[in-house]
Amino acid sequence: MQLQPFSVGDSVTVRTPASTANLGPGFDSIGLALGLIDEVVATVEPDGLTITVAGHGDSTVPLDEGHLIWQSMCAMWERLEVDAPAGLRLDCRNAVPHSRGLGSSATAIVAGAGSALALAGVDLSAPEALTLVNDVAGDIEGHPDNASASVYGGLTLSWRDDERAGWRTVRPPLHPDIVPVVLVPDATLSTDKARSALAATLPLRDAASTAGRAALLIEAMTRRPDLLLPATREWLHQEARRPAYAPSMALVDRLRADGLAAVISGAGPTVLVLAAVRDVPRITAPDAGWQILTPGVPDTGIRAVSHSGASKV
Amino acid sequence: MQLQPFSVGDSVTVRTPASTANLGPGFDSIGLALGLIDEVVATVEPDGLTITVAGHGDSTVPLDEGHLIWQSMCAMWERLEVDAPAGLRLDCRNAVPHSRGLGSSATAIVAGAGSALALAGVDLSAPEALTLVNDVAGDIEGHPDNASASVYGGLTLSWRDDERAGWRTVRPPLHPDIVPVVLVPDATLSTDKARSALAATLPLRDAASTAGRAALLIEAMTRRPDLLLPATREWLHQEARRPAYAPSMALVDRLRADGLAAVISGAGPTVLVLAAVRDVPRITAPDAGWQILTPGVPDTGIRAVSHSGASKV
Repeated sequence: MQLQPFSVGDSVTVRTPASTANLGPGFDSIGLALGLIDEVVATVEPDGLTITVAGHGDSTVPLDEGHLIWQSMCAMWERLEVDAPAGLRLDCRNAVPHSRGLGSSATAIVAGAGSALALAGVDLSAPEALTLVNDVAGDIEGHPDNASASVYGGLTLSWRDDERAGWRTVRPPLHPDIVPVVLVPDATLSTDKARSALAATLPLRDAASTAGRAALLIEAMTRRPDLLLPATREWLHQEARRPAYAPSMALVDRLRADGLAAVISGAGPTVLVLAAVRDVPRITAPDAGWQILTPGVPDTGIRAVSHSGASKV
Repeated sequence: MQLQPFSVGDSVTVRTPASTANLGPGFDSIGLALGLIDEVVATVEPDGLTITVAGHGDSTVPLDEGHLIWQSMCAMWERLEVDAPAGLRLDCRNAVPHSRGLGSSATAIVAGAGSALALAGVDLSAPEALTLVNDVAGDIEGHPDNASASVYGGLTLSWRDDERAGWRTVRPPLHPDIVPVVLVPDATLSTDKARSALAATLPLRDAASTAGRAALLIEAMTRRPDLLLPATREWLHQEARRPAYAPSMALVDRLRADGLAAVISGAGPTVLVLAAVRDVPRITAPDAGWQILTPGVPDTGIRAVSHSGASKV
């Protein structure tokens, strides 16, 4: 991979989609990109770290070395064995809601790893560039499901490669009749809190049933959308976390009883419905505290939309 | 479903394929039909039960009411709410080895349920007939993976339907480049013994990893045979049963280290390799105590090959 040294004024604009993960039984493995796009402009400066944030997280995320995009850029440069530039400016426009189960952390990590690679002169659309971003992002996040969807777009299925000790991802072809509908509550839930509610072990029977439904999920998402209701059933995480997002589970229960393939999006509390177009009007929120979005599924993930070697944006 | 009363002399000849199950992570859900075919001729007689067996099991299976085909016929008639005929003759020609992990019990159960239905005048090639045979057989066996492959042929993925309290099966389209190779040892292992070696619970991490690989297995079996090696990895059953089939696991380890997608077939001790044609010559047995078969995958499952209303075979 051919790298270029940083020069003051180098700038890259990167767009990265949000994602939903798990889709029921695909816990920590299956992701789906969503058409909610974060944009970041990264510009090499003479010194210092300047960060601005507009949109989601503008009053909550740290604007110093603790910022997740900056940290992920540093992780990529470390992997590339290059020093960070002496100064950097990050201007973030965030469309992905935080702490809702829509992969905003993975989106930021992928944006950071990708923009760091682009600033080093690498074409982000090259397969080997995406493989590297996917691997660095999976390592930072600790699980690949959201990050891989932000990297590749579409439907993703990821696993830890035993031999090469890295993350691998395939993209099963998403059936065109499937429309993701996300119901986003005002309430937030941290992923760490959600993870701590999980059981350490589960019965063999539940593990086997969940594996069977994960297999069925790939069949349903690519060839048999009529089977999405049974294909999204699982015995691994949602019921264990019910107290952490009770209103969301009540909504999932109600939608499923109505024949709709509803699940918790990622670690919640957003609810995802994998619907047919004709079913979308039937999907209603419990009250005014919910936003209903049909963001679509972008077919590509992270993209560098502009790149300049010597002029500031 | 239109049923006909039994008459002495009614006869049906039914052919049913063997199967391999699990394929690694698809424990109790994924099956693959194999071109080893058991044949049974069932004939209504004036009274008594006469059973003959040629081939595998000829010196071991009971030749009275304890015979598995007869028991499965009775289960089907009970489901149909018809009385068994006063007399029956069963002539069995068995090509499927017993207690090897090749689904011989499921083959017998499906043969029984199917021949009972055919004797009652139902066309076994009708979808609703196969649904019924699949459901009765899954109930008798307690898990649907082998039975569904014997019913439908090809690659099958099955689950317990929550609402209708029955077994359901889909048939993902098998990629044409995949060749199943089975290595059958002289040694036998009972399924009951193999099941008792399983752990009651497993770590959440292992359950999640196994579910991800089960999803990948469907992708690999239908679109990406190049991914069969990672797609057949699992953390649910094979390692726990290693002491029960140590020579088989040693063979699996050796073949996998050589890049071949080897797994234990069903509850063992047969080893299954999901290979490309070019890989078949590389698949060798440890010693003379193993038989290597490439039986192919029949695209249909149970079939009535002849049916007569008044003449004995």
